[in-house]
Parts: sequence; C-alpha cells; structure tokens
Amino acid sequence: MAAKEKKNAFYAQSGGVTAVINASACGVIETARANRDRIGKVYAGRNGIIGALTEDLIDTSKESAAAIALLRSTPSGAFGSCRYKLKSLEANKREYERLIEVFRAHGIGYFFYNGGGDSADTCFKVSQLSQTMGYPIQAIHVPKTVDNDLPITDCCPGFGSVAKYVAVSALEASFDVRSMAKTSTKVFVLEVMGRHAGWIAAAGGLIEDEGIPVVVLFPEVEFDEKKFLARVEALVKKHGFCTVVVSEGCHHPDGTFLAEQGTKDAFGHAQLGGAAPVVANMVKQGLGYKFHWAVADYLQRAARHIASKTDAKQAYEVGAAAVKLALKGHNAVMPTVERVSDAPYKYRIGVAPLDKVANTEKFMPRNFITADGFGITEACKRYLRPLIQGEDYPRYRNGMPVYATLKNVAVPKKLPTFEMQK
Amino acid sequence: MAAKEKKNAFYAQSGGVTAVINASACGVIETARANRDRIGKVYAGRNGIIGALTEDLIDTSKESAAAIALLRSTPSGAFGSCRYKLKSLEANKREYERLIEVFRAHGIGYFFYNGGGDSADTCFKVSQLSQTMGYPIQAIHVPKTVDNDLPITDCCPGFGSVAKYVAVSALEASFDVRSMAKTSTKVFVLEVMGRHAGWIAAAGGLIEDEGIPVVVLFPEVEFDEKKFLARVEALVKKHGFCTVVVSEGCHHPDGTFLAEQGTKDAFGHAQLGGAAPVVANMVKQGLGYKFHWAVADYLQRAARHIASKTDAKQAYEVGAAAVKLALKGHNAVMPTVERVSDAPYKYRIGVAPLDKVANTEKFMPRNFITADGFGITEACKRYLRPLIQGEDYPRYRNGMPVYATLKNVAVPKKLPTFEMQK
Repeated sequence: MAAKEKKNAFYAQSGGVTAVINASACGVIETARANRDRIGKVYAGRNGIIGALTEDLIDTSKESAAAIALLRSTPSGAFGSCRYKLKSLEANKREYERLIEVFRAHGIGYFFYNGGGDSADTCFKVSQLSQTMGYPIQAIHVPKTVDNDLPITDCCPGFGSVAKYVAVSALEASFDVRSMAKTSTKVFVLEVMGRHAGWIAAAGGLIEDEGIPVVVLFPEVEFDEKKFLARVEALVKKHGFCTVVVSEGCHHPDGTFLAEQGTKDAFGHAQLGGAAPVVANMVKQGLGYKFHWAVADYLQRAARHIASKTDAKQAYEVGAAAVKLALKGHNAVMPTVERVSDAPYKYRIGVAPLDKVANTEKFMPRNFITADGFGITEACKRYLRPLIQGEDYPRYRNGMPVYATLKNVAVPKKLPTFEMQK
Repeated sequence: MAAKEKKNAFYAQSGGVTAVINASACGVIETARANRDRIGKVYAGRNGIIGALTEDLIDTSKESAAAIALLRSTPSGAFGSCRYKLKSLEANKREYERLIEVFRAHGIGYFFYNGGGDSADTCFKVSQLSQTMGYPIQAIHVPKTVDNDLPITDCCPGFGSVAKYVAVSALEASFDVRSMAKTSTKVFVLEVMGRHAGWIAAAGGLIEDEGIPVVVLFPEVEFDEKKFLARVEALVKKHGFCTVVVSEGCHHPDGTFLAEQGTKDAFGHAQLGGAAPVVANMVKQGLGYKFHWAVADYLQRAARHIASKTDAKQAYEVGAAAVKLALKGHNAVMPTVERVSDAPYKYRIGVAPLDKVANTEKFMPRNFITADGFGITEACKRYLRPLIQGEDYPRYRNGMPVYATLKNVAVPKKLPTFEMQK
C-alpha cells in the first residue's frame, strides 16, 4: 500500500440554524486547518446533506483565516442548511450509494454533521456506511439546536443564546408594561419557540428573579384556560401588570396547539401561527385587560448580537472536539457538554455514542416546572443561569454588526448529475 | 419681598416609553442636582401627568446618585407613564385648577414633560398657565418618541435605538432565511411599529446595504397586493429569498389597515393585530413560498441592550438642555436635535417653540422612499445611518442586564383627594 493519503472532510449544517452554529463551523474548520498534516480540505455541503447528494460542495480552503474566524460571531448557517432526513438504507439505498460515490470522488473520509435530533439520525446512518456499504467513513455529529432537546449532553449549543435573548427581551418588555400599566397595557405576551420541549419558554421564567410577575406556558403542561386566567388576574391585581411567555408548542388537553384555534382569515383560509395573539385575546375576553403581544420567531434564534458567551464558547468547542475525536479514530459519536458544577459553573467536553442520541427528545423534567405549572423551580434556574452567562458581542461597523458572508466557491464536479427524490 | 425661594421641578414621562426615555430623566435630574442652588427638588409624576393631578409625586431626591446614573442605561419609564391628554382649558378647567393647586402646594415652578406629539400639546397647555390662570410656571417639553414624528427636531430620542434594533434584527433574521431558503423558508416578514409614519420600517431598509433583498411596506404608501407580490417574486427568483419589513400602519387604498382584514377567531371575535401574518399568508397564497413572520412589538422599543449610542447620548442631552433652558428663563419650548452634517455626523442641541411642535406629525418625505414604494433612497440612508451609530451596552450581572428599579418614594400629600374624570 502506498503512503497513506490524507483524507478530506465533509462538514454540513442541518435543520433550523442558530446564533452560534457558525461558531461550531469555525471550530471544525480551524481545528482541521491546525491539523493539515492529517486532514486535507474541509468541503462544506451547500445546504446541508443536499450538498453531498448533489455534489454541490464548497471548498472552505478558499476562505481566508479572517473570514473563517469571523464565522465565530456570525449567526445562521454560512453554507446553507436544509430540512432533509435520509431514509433508511432499505427505503432509499440509492441515496447512500450516491453519498459514497461523492465521498469517494472527493477523497472524503470524515463526515461532520452539525444539527439536532433528526440530523443525529442522518449522521448515525452515515456512520454505519463502513459496515453496511463497505465505505470507510468516520461520522461525528456536532450538536446544535435552540430547542435544547438532545439527550445525554447537558445542554445544546444554540440554546444558551436563545435563552439569553428570551430572558433579556422578556425583562425589557416587562419594564415597558410596568411603565404603561396604570392607564394602558397590563399584560404582555411573548411567544417563543419550542414545539415539543419548553426549554426556551423556561428561560423567560428567569425574569422572576428580577422582580417581574411572569407566567410561563410550557408544551409539557396541558393548557387550562381557567387556571391560566386566574393566575394572570392574581398577578395583575397584586403587581398591576404581568408578562406571559408562551411556547409555540403550548396545547390543549386534546393535543391541538393554542395557535390552531380554528382562526380563519377573511377568505376563510386557516390562519397560520400565533399562540401569542390567541393567549392575548383570551386575557382580553376573560379579564378585560389591555394587552400587547410579540412573536419573536427567527429573531430569537438569529440574535447573535445578544449571544451568550458561554454558548458561543461551547459551540466552538464541540466543533473543535468533533475533529479531535475523528483524529482519534472515533466514529458514530457526538461531543457533549458535561456539567461538573452549577456555581461556579464548570463543564468539560465529553462524548456520547450516536445511537443513544438519534431520535430521542429531552423534555423539561417535571421538577423544573413549579407545581402550578406556570413557572420554573429553583432547580431549573440553577440549570439555566450558567448557560446565559457572559456577553460575546460581534464587531460593529457604521452601527451594524459585521457578519461573515463567505465566498462559498464550489468544488468542481466530477460526477454525473443526481436527481433528488421529491 | 423675601429672599427668592428655590422652586421645585416636576418631571413626568408620557405616552409609549422607549429604550432611552430614562436617559432623558437622568439628564433632567442630574442637571437639576448640579444646579441645587437654583432648583430645589425634582418631583416625578407617578404615571405621568396623572401623578400631578392625583398629587402622587415621587421624591427623586431619595434616590442615590448611582441609582439616577443607572437610569441612563435602563429602558422604559422608571416613574411610570400614561396615555392621558389634557383637554382644553374651556373643556376641563377643573384639571388645570388642580394642577395649579398641586404645583403651589409643592412649590413647583418648573414643569418638564417627556413625551411625543400629544404630550407636547399637554406641555404647551401647562406652559400657558401663567397667562391663562396667573400661576407662574415654566414648562419645557423633552422630546421622546420611537415614531420619530415630531416636527422641527431632526430626530426624536428613542427613534435611533428602535431603528438600530430593527436594522440589526432584520439583518440577523435575513441571514437565517438565507440559510434555510433552499428547502424551507423563503420569505421572512417582520412587523414593526409606526401607525402613521414609516420611519421605523425605513430602518429595515438599511439591510439592503448588507446585501439583503428587502421589501419595506410604509404607512405612507398605499398597499398594492399585486405589485407587492410581483416584487417579492422577483427578489426570491433572483436571490432565493427575501425579507419584508412591514409597518403596523400599512394600509389598503380605502384606509383599512392590513392588520384588520376581517380576521376572526373561532368564537367569531375580530382577531386583533398582526400585519405580519396577513402579509405572510398573502405570500403563501399568492406565490406558494414558505414563510416565517415575527411581530417585534414592545421588544423593539424596550431593547436597551442594543440601544444606539448616538440616541442614548441625545436622549440624555435633551433632558439636560431642558433644565438649562428653564434656568435661562425659557417657557413653552422644546430642545431639539439640529443636524449640522451627515458624514461625519455632527449635530447641536437647539430649541423650538412648543406651539409649533404640538399636534404636528412629521411623515417620511417622498424622496426618502424609492419610486416603486418598496424601499428607501440614498437620501434616507444618509439620514438614518448616523442615528444608529455606536453601541451603548448596559452592565450585566449573571447574564442579565442591570436595570434600575427605583424606590419611588411618595411625597407626603397635602391636598384633598382629586377624582379623575373617567
């Protein structure tokens, strides 16, 4: 056998992006560059795994060190993301064969996939290609999700920043309502992400420590309108105002989301989205209080300007750790954050087997939610507080943050076109 | 006549609050304290002018210098605000007589009112009390409004920070959509404040300079669905995605707001608010693009964490200038921001007669809006850019911004209770 050739790496971003997923990309690419003797080029998939399937690879070696460094403070996915889950090998063998063709054509031996639960599943399937299809590959999953719902890891990069955004925004808006409550708005409703798990909504509960009366509505707790209105009324009577943080996944006992209350527009079309206006209108109808509501949507997960320093740091570290794990010969694993202590906050980067990560969601434990279902416990606060610690401001120019837009130069194609399955 | 007694000052916050109205309060109080030889105490109205009418005064001398200094970086109204406009002297003479009783009882000779157009009207009426009711008072209006719609002054404190929030948030969310556009969201819609004037929406147009395809919907331009959809389609075809920034005041040619499209909830109640979901659904129905939408609402005007340094500075300066104007003997005036040059940005604090300010709204000039009605011109960008310059971060503790909550100690009452008119 000839002298061992350096293998190239494939990196892709998957699913909903975050304020710090590019920090993980930065960690992967900078660590690979620091190990040039063992890793060739890092090819990024344009729009996630689709870039691999369609041989649409980005040559990250064309980007300057400064451009890659700037990824650390740039929100969203610099190479494009996708919502696409590989089917099982049995159901769509053609896709796996194609992946191998692309990997072989471009000398790819490392597969770094940066995503949440669905992506962990895709990454796990790829990690099995050595066994199932005879192509030698090491696949490492880099954790990312604002939903904080991956198992084993103490937290998921992306979550700390959205938690900080939600806590800070809810606090600021609460100060606003408090100012206005005498003659105007008494209840402010903020809708946040989290279709299944209430971690993001929970972050809103942190404002209680700043003296704000707050009601949190979790997806983990069946919504009870009567109890909810009673709680709001009690808080407004006592404090003059209150803030409600509602998860988009908040639902009635029958499973229907609050946001799907049969609302129709003028043309009779079902009106999409918006748990906040539904909750706000309930408050108006039931209690007569003037309200305001906001839906943060993408603003919350893109808000790099108020990212958590802890989160940005961990996002970088799991990217760097993924490359180091690969160099140590690992396959089918995911770097994790292992908490050592709450206060002072200490953690180390650990590792989890991917088959234990894929397709498992981590919900809020019951002891993180108060007995009445409307707030977070001290145990939850102890968990959350370290994750929003520290500010990590981007650089600004002319009043605007300086975020990286990469050149994203395509790697010349070597294979025939591949038709994606619809 | 005995040795001239020092007069006390009354200060109140009025109307919708902002990220920097407390910086103006800080400017008023610190400047008054620096002139203790000539100004007695500063009494703040609890909840605006209502605090004066009900003799609910806050003794700001009970607050430490550190607490007052912290107001400079605290959003919202520290003394409470109100939405309450004094009627004319003819229509409600009783209220003016009451104001004079309260002023007299507490030795108040200076009246500082911190608000927008309606508040300027109230302030002007108070400024006339020397003439109309024989009570010697000097009333100075301190400009404040996120809407940026006061005349004469080049800009209104409060606006620069909301403009920065909108520009930064729209940029970040646009990066997000750009990442997702291949297989998911192609259009992001952000709803911002501005019922009559499109200044805040205009700030969203600044992201064009960062390479983002953006459509701005102003209240000043009648909404044309067909033209709008054609514009969105053209941008998505060219760039793969686009961002829409819609003013809450955007309306159809017949004057009805987009947000009032006859939408009803499951109970048949008119659904309140939300131009963004209406626009997003139009895009879905008309073009089939997947969308996301956000409504920033209070988050935008409370976002002290991303305040414009220029704005925070000017807010402080107009507060300080108001006190200096009073000490120079002025009445019925408002300090203004006078722009000297765009780049480098230079300005000075000027002064305007209050009768020219009250009840006049300043809309976006036509030459600030592009010919097609969907964007901002270079002239508008030249106007806006300086106003979002600089960051002025609050201090953080344990991951959360440190904002002032004052003691707000009540001044002992000396008068009988006053029944507010309903």
